[in-house]
Amino acid sequence: MPELAQRFSSNPLISPKDVRPSAPGLEVECVLNPGVFRYNGQTGLVLRVAERPPETERAIKVPVLNPAAPDGIEILSFAKDDPELDLSDPRLFSYQGRTYLTTVSHLRLAWSDNGTDFAIDERATLTGEGPLESFGIEDCRVSAVADEYVLTYAAVSPHGVGVNMIRTSDWKQFQREGMIFAPENKNTAVFEETIGGRYWAFHRPSNVNFKGNHIWVASSPDLTHWGGHACIAMVRPGQWDETRMGAAAAPVRTEHGWLALYHGADRHNRYCLGALLLDYGDPTRVLARSTDPIMEPTASYEREGFFGGVVFANGHVLDGDTLTIYYGAADTVVCGASFSVREILASLGR
Amino acid sequence: MPELAQRFSSNPLISPKDVRPSAPGLEVECVLNPGVFRYNGQTGLVLRVAERPPETERAIKVPVLNPAAPDGIEILSFAKDDPELDLSDPRLFSYQGRTYLTTVSHLRLAWSDNGTDFAIDERATLTGEGPLESFGIEDCRVSAVADEYVLTYAAVSPHGVGVNMIRTSDWKQFQREGMIFAPENKNTAVFEETIGGRYWAFHRPSNVNFKGNHIWVASSPDLTHWGGHACIAMVRPGQWDETRMGAAAAPVRTEHGWLALYHGADRHNRYCLGALLLDYGDPTRVLARSTDPIMEPTASYEREGFFGGVVFANGHVLDGDTLTIYYGAADTVVCGASFSVREILASLGR
Repeated sequence: MPELAQRFSSNPLISPKDVRPSAPGLEVECVLNPGVFRYNGQTGLVLRVAERPPETERAIKVPVLNPAAPDGIEILSFAKDDPELDLSDPRLFSYQGRTYLTTVSHLRLAWSDNGTDFAIDERATLTGEGPLESFGIEDCRVSAVADEYVLTYAAVSPHGVGVNMIRTSDWKQFQREGMIFAPENKNTAVFEETIGGRYWAFHRPSNVNFKGNHIWVASSPDLTHWGGHACIAMVRPGQWDETRMGAAAAPVRTEHGWLALYHGADRHNRYCLGALLLDYGDPTRVLARSTDPIMEPTASYEREGFFGGVVFANGHVLDGDTLTIYYGAADTVVCGASFSVREILASLGR
Repeated sequence: MPELAQRFSSNPLISPKDVRPSAPGLEVECVLNPGVFRYNGQTGLVLRVAERPPETERAIKVPVLNPAAPDGIEILSFAKDDPELDLSDPRLFSYQGRTYLTTVSHLRLAWSDNGTDFAIDERATLTGEGPLESFGIEDCRVSAVADEYVLTYAAVSPHGVGVNMIRTSDWKQFQREGMIFAPENKNTAVFEETIGGRYWAFHRPSNVNFKGNHIWVASSPDLTHWGGHACIAMVRPGQWDETRMGAAAAPVRTEHGWLALYHGADRHNRYCLGALLLDYGDPTRVLARSTDPIMEPTASYEREGFFGGVVFANGHVLDGDTLTIYYGAADTVVCGASFSVREILASLGR
């Protein structure tokens, strides 16, 4: 099947060199996985900016948020020739039974009038706060709910990876709502409309004994307390989404139901995009699911980078039939691509 | 330090032979981990009854709940000499990338006038229902909240292990509230009083990359939707609670704060009991924690059985200074023991 994604010719749109480090002594390693929204006629991105101190010849250095340290960041150092250090995954490693990230991420705003050229804020907009965010905050989804924006993102710490929420109406004042989904959870996006008088969200808990990282929905009376968890889509052994999957963003309303993009990864950590169609009145009912990906990591900037073979979308804007995603490529840069909603629905047999 | 537990001389109180199977063709393998409550002057237990079909010489048989099957249970069969079968853990095994439990559990009521002699219902009181409980329901906690009882238990299925809730006021009519904590989660107990106008609960999410099975609290406006997750106690490397821990039941109000018993396990899956003391007005604040266990698996019926080396309490009743636990021993039988609350507090330095 031909891919449905039309990539921007100017990709990548944003690279690490375009982003000013948040503190002296840090380098921007990756800029990736933006939340996407519209505000005052502009397209806004909530970039994930991943930083670390420069490695030396002999040591890898790891940043950890610590309010008591200068600039709020404490630097841990590990000798590269230490036999207890396994650096086979560029994203994280274990040492003496503890796991560390190689980078610490914060969230930063970028703005565009034309959807292609982005002005990136000079400073971090949101950084990790408190014990549940000491390894950083990542992969923010933005939903426009009533008259405000609801941000849901991965909060990373030695306590695990959970989902925290922040609310804003003006992108200047931010209200922190704490953790809404306990570890191990990620990939949470709040629906932009209520259904049956309740708020709904996609989320993605991880299993231990029973393995699998499946997509669930939950509902809420107030956005901050969630229940009624239901698993709606499971990974498919032997297919492109065999090990993990997660919703991209709030679903889009279509005449056939809620259309949701999702990422799926295989055992080689190759990340593609697919789509789910959900019943309009009951989002626990899956009406259709992509057999083949609607987008695969085929461009050079998707195949090679900090973590190659990845297209990962956690935000999009809709304009008529055109759904434009801003996505992380190879966990390194931010790119753009557009889809026809009609073509995605056709690929789902609708 | 001397153990604080006074075991009942008549232990074990309930053994598998005392429990009638829930369906023809099943054997009761274990009766364990009861929720505990008082109702109409009686002590009630919500037993976990774990059943399976008899093994044959050549096959292990695994029960899975399936409404379409006779008696609602489908029997899967695996050849014991299949090299893909790893039976080193008596509780579960993997086959061709999928995990199965060796038994399926239901919940069953038992009643006592004197707290020692229990009459066990002839039939299953609550069995797994729906896709999130197809591998059974386990380890129920019971909390008396306002004028009803709130039951929280592990819901096990190929989707993972989460926490479901059931409410009852008369132990005859049961209201199912679905899943309140998504996988991977267990060991949830609702506090019996509100604090700051909200309900509170202990829960125990599990991590993947960052490992560790720590105790968290969450709060709720309505018992069925939860948020404000906070990690209050982490496993302690090298100690008796180094790999996993979980709250026993709703905490007990004392003059020094909320007293909560918990189980802790080490790398050898040896399960002991300890205690936490929490701030009365802010249960996210831990005031004290056991250095040594207050109870260890030392009796013969705790050391040997289906899964030896286990004392696991998920329910107790308080009478003056006496806290009586009914606990699972070696994952096989139900036993009783009592503690002095004053002695537990003294062991915590209070």
